[in-house]
Amino acid sequence: MDRRSFNRRLLAGGAVAATGVTSLSLASASSAAPDAAVAAAPLRTAPAGGAIRHLNLYAEKLADGRMGYGLEKGKATVPGPLIELNEGDTLHIAFENLMDVPVSLHPHGVDYDIDNDGTRMSGSHVEAGATRTYTWRTHAPGRRPDGTWRPGSAGYWHYHDHVVGTDHGTGGIRKGLYGGLVVRRKGDILPDKQFTIVFNDMTINNRPAADPPDFLATVGDRVEIVMITHGEYYHTFHMHGHRWADNRTGLLAGPEDVSRVVDNKITGPADSFGFQIIAGEHVGAGAWMYHCHVQSHSDMGMAGLFLVAKPDGTVPGHGDHGTHGAATAKEEPAPQPPGDTHHH
Amino acid sequence: MDRRSFNRRLLAGGAVAATGVTSLSLASASSAAPDAAVAAAPLRTAPAGGAIRHLNLYAEKLADGRMGYGLEKGKATVPGPLIELNEGDTLHIAFENLMDVPVSLHPHGVDYDIDNDGTRMSGSHVEAGATRTYTWRTHAPGRRPDGTWRPGSAGYWHYHDHVVGTDHGTGGIRKGLYGGLVVRRKGDILPDKQFTIVFNDMTINNRPAADPPDFLATVGDRVEIVMITHGEYYHTFHMHGHRWADNRTGLLAGPEDVSRVVDNKITGPADSFGFQIIAGEHVGAGAWMYHCHVQSHSDMGMAGLFLVAKPDGTVPGHGDHGTHGAATAKEEPAPQPPGDTHHH
Amino acid sequence: MDRRSFNRRLLAGGAVAATGVTSLSLASASSAAPDAAVAAAPLRTAPAGGAIRHLNLYAEKLADGRMGYGLEKGKATVPGPLIELNEGDTLHIAFENLMDVPVSLHPHGVDYDIDNDGTRMSGSHVEAGATRTYTWRTHAPGRRPDGTWRPGSAGYWHYHDHVVGTDHGTGGIRKGLYGGLVVRRKGDILPDKQFTIVFNDMTINNRPAADPPDFLATVGDRVEIVMITHGEYYHTFHMHGHRWADNRTGLLAGPEDVSRVVDNKITGPADSFGFQIIAGEHVGAGAWMYHCHVQSHSDMGMAGLFLVAKPDGTVPGHGDHGTHGAATAKEEPAPQPPGDTHHH
Repeated sequence: MDRRSFNRRLLAGGAVAATGVTSLSLASASSAAPDAAVAAAPLRTAPAGGAIRHLNLYAEKLADGRMGYGLEKGKATVPGPLIELNEGDTLHIAFENLMDVPVSLHPHGVDYDIDNDGTRMSGSHVEAGATRTYTWRTHAPGRRPDGTWRPGSAGYWHYHDHVVGTDHGTGGIRKGLYGGLVVRRKGDILPDKQFTIVFNDMTINNRPAADPPDFLATVGDRVEIVMITHGEYYHTFHMHGHRWADNRTGLLAGPEDVSRVVDNKITGPADSFGFQIIAGEHVGAGAWMYHCHVQSHSDMGMAGLFLVAKPDGTVPGHGDHGTHGAATAKEEPAPQPPGDTHHH
Repeated sequence: MDRRSFNRRLLAGGAVAATGVTSLSLASASSAAPDAAVAAAPLRTAPAGGAIRHLNLYAEKLADGRMGYGLEKGKATVPGPLIELNEGDTLHIAFENLMDVPVSLHPHGVDYDIDNDGTRMSGSHVEAGATRTYTWRTHAPGRRPDGTWRPGSAGYWHYHDHVVGTDHGTGGIRKGLYGGLVVRRKGDILPDKQFTIVFNDMTINNRPAADPPDFLATVGDRVEIVMITHGEYYHTFHMHGHRWADNRTGLLAGPEDVSRVVDNKITGPADSFGFQIIAGEHVGAGAWMYHCHVQSHSDMGMAGLFLVAKPDGTVPGHGDHGTHGAATAKEEPAPQPPGDTHHH
Repeated sequence: MDRRSFNRRLLAGGAVAATGVTSLSLASASSAAPDAAVAAAPLRTAPAGGAIRHLNLYAEKLADGRMGYGLEKGKATVPGPLIELNEGDTLHIAFENLMDVPVSLHPHGVDYDIDNDGTRMSGSHVEAGATRTYTWRTHAPGRRPDGTWRPGSAGYWHYHDHVVGTDHGTGGIRKGLYGGLVVRRKGDILPDKQFTIVFNDMTINNRPAADPPDFLATVGDRVEIVMITHGEYYHTFHMHGHRWADNRTGLLAGPEDVSRVVDNKITGPADSFGFQIIAGEHVGAGAWMYHCHVQSHSDMGMAGLFLVAKPDGTVPGHGDHGTHGAATAKEEPAPQPPGDTHHH
């Protein structure tokens, strides 16, 4: 689901809004077009953080045996909702375990006390049927009293269970208890669309090999990919026709930025990275493959499509040639960005 | 083969020139020694791109069962020819499939329309005995209308088959259908010698474990390594006695460049990187091992020699001690840089 | 063991000092607090190198079947001693093989002639019962005569055997013949404590899965982790509650540094990296897990604790909840930094 259609749903006052998600006014946009005279569209950038935010999150079993996190009861997704914060924000997560086994929430990248660690050892898991609040904090970069530079919390992070099956959450992760977590720095560029891609064991987003997730955008969209790996295997994430910078933002800071630009990257369990691409930039519309480039993995189905449509909605290079069959674009029902208040 | 001897062959008007390769005046040198008073030798740097180039490329089966790409019929090599472009260049590849199965050409890093993707799904493969032209474009970095920085195409990339055996080219890659692709930015430093090293499944450049490729240089040569991984396994690429920067060029930009300097790097299928080293800098001449550092992989033969000779041609540390046997340097017949017009 | 308690032992004139280690006045501290008015404690930074240093090193079998390097006979550890140099230093290692099989010493990152390579091929191994001197050199960064920037030797490197079991030292590495090697640049910040963590095959520092190494620090300590991988498998190194920059120092250079900040990193055999963290910064005291995030690896025991104590010595989040059992902190007897002369 793209952010605009999600906004439409939100504005329509649907069930999502009823969960209190709208109190999470994450990443509200500010305008920062550096050259308004020539800019095709004003850039929207992340504001300063510092807000105290609240979110309800539920862990539950899905009918097909998967497990997922959701913003409402009965609405769990795999991956779980993409959570966004701005550096300086604090997030209180009212967490309820709707399953019959203990579960937890362990985040990467953000700040939390040891009793919010999500491990059984620290006693920060949640028994079957129980509730608790997890608190995650974030901070902006700055100088320490000794003059050294303290990194901020910004990054493409993720969260996952740490107790189902084993003390490392192997069973919970395998079944789908994971999601993306983006922390933005003031001034970071906001995307038009976001997609979370998780290589979990030999699946993409726990989907069957015969039905991998496809993602739909239109030429010119600023698309953000949040790429997470989980499970047992190493993978190489490859996109056709698009590249990104191998640094914090996935965007080159300018001509002095020596970061390697890549279209393929090795990753292992719990690694995460993100980047923004302009859909079809330099290459045009098309049904662009993305896939794990480990040959047996792609052959067994770790491949999907990044469908970049022309303004008229058609997607060339897709249809009667090959394995993906259908000529009409099937869009992945992507995890919902909670409290998205971006406007176009 | 080093670039100078290749130049000699080119200048001799041999068969290579007859294929039209000479129209590919890639990376022609310009002088840019920043301190001519002390410079040992003038640096040669890449010029601005913008040329329209043409190349003939053939896919064919080799007598030993391998498959390869070549610039001439009957001259396929594994890896295929190292192709070099400057940012801004467009390359038209007149491609002929001399095999009895469909094949394709899928590049990493460069720009191409979806119908040049080299996938079966997009119909951009080439049937047995057929021909087609693939077009690859490149671009320089610059600012987008919205003020953000657009990366250029420069990088150490590669190309490979995407259809033999499976829809991901697993069979073609396994048999040798791959090669290096270097795109340079104006001002990038040009090397004296270039070697392509591909860790493909458990081989180096599809060579038998008992006969790995060795590479020969002389102390002081500016040697460029293009390192590509393919197949099924992860590897760690290690060189003895030499290090490089883990960034776009493999060279530190200056004292402010925080890139990690490494002599060992994990890679997975379709990852690629490159770097330049001064042969023997700080360490002198020697038979320097390079190898995969996964212990079972090196033990099974994923190890070769970077033979750095003294000016008199001798290579110390090689000969009567160990597994590589022969005291005389055996140089790898490296893939031919097409249209190399560098001069010394 | 932390550097301060090691200093106490050294100053007490114990057995370690008797080995001549004190001649290795590595990384002697200089003060460089950029803002003395607000600095909590003066930063200690690495001085310029250029010293000629000497070290005795022994390879021996341990009673339990492991093999190790040590600074004294009968005192080998796994990992071996953490060796530190400053760019410009030369280190002569008087090496004695106390075992009944040939062994060697092969370093990463530093400069050495081919006859100091530590390979059987170059004849630079050491027969059973024999001795030899290995010489490692280092250099500062600077400009070459041609104007290009030459990287310095600074980095988080390591050393290991290259001949036991196979010509790549597979048997020696498996049994424990490895250690850390840190080369510092003038001005690099010195830590309060250092820990070496080696993921070797499916172990941490060759320790049994039921008894992994834990590491103890106090909130506010500047802790340096030297992380090395060896053996056969890829791993992902993860720390709870702490993050680092994925660059040379593991520290961000300042607001312009685009390095990705991570808390999880894929590594393969012979990869190494290091970083400094302020224990408990933003998160407080706690028994923070560190572990391989490959799910089966952590489940089989590749997990330990980074115990961050309050000033009163207590460590919250540890004790009666889980698999690590004991409520009292068990500190890893960390490898000894030889010749540590830091003062507090």
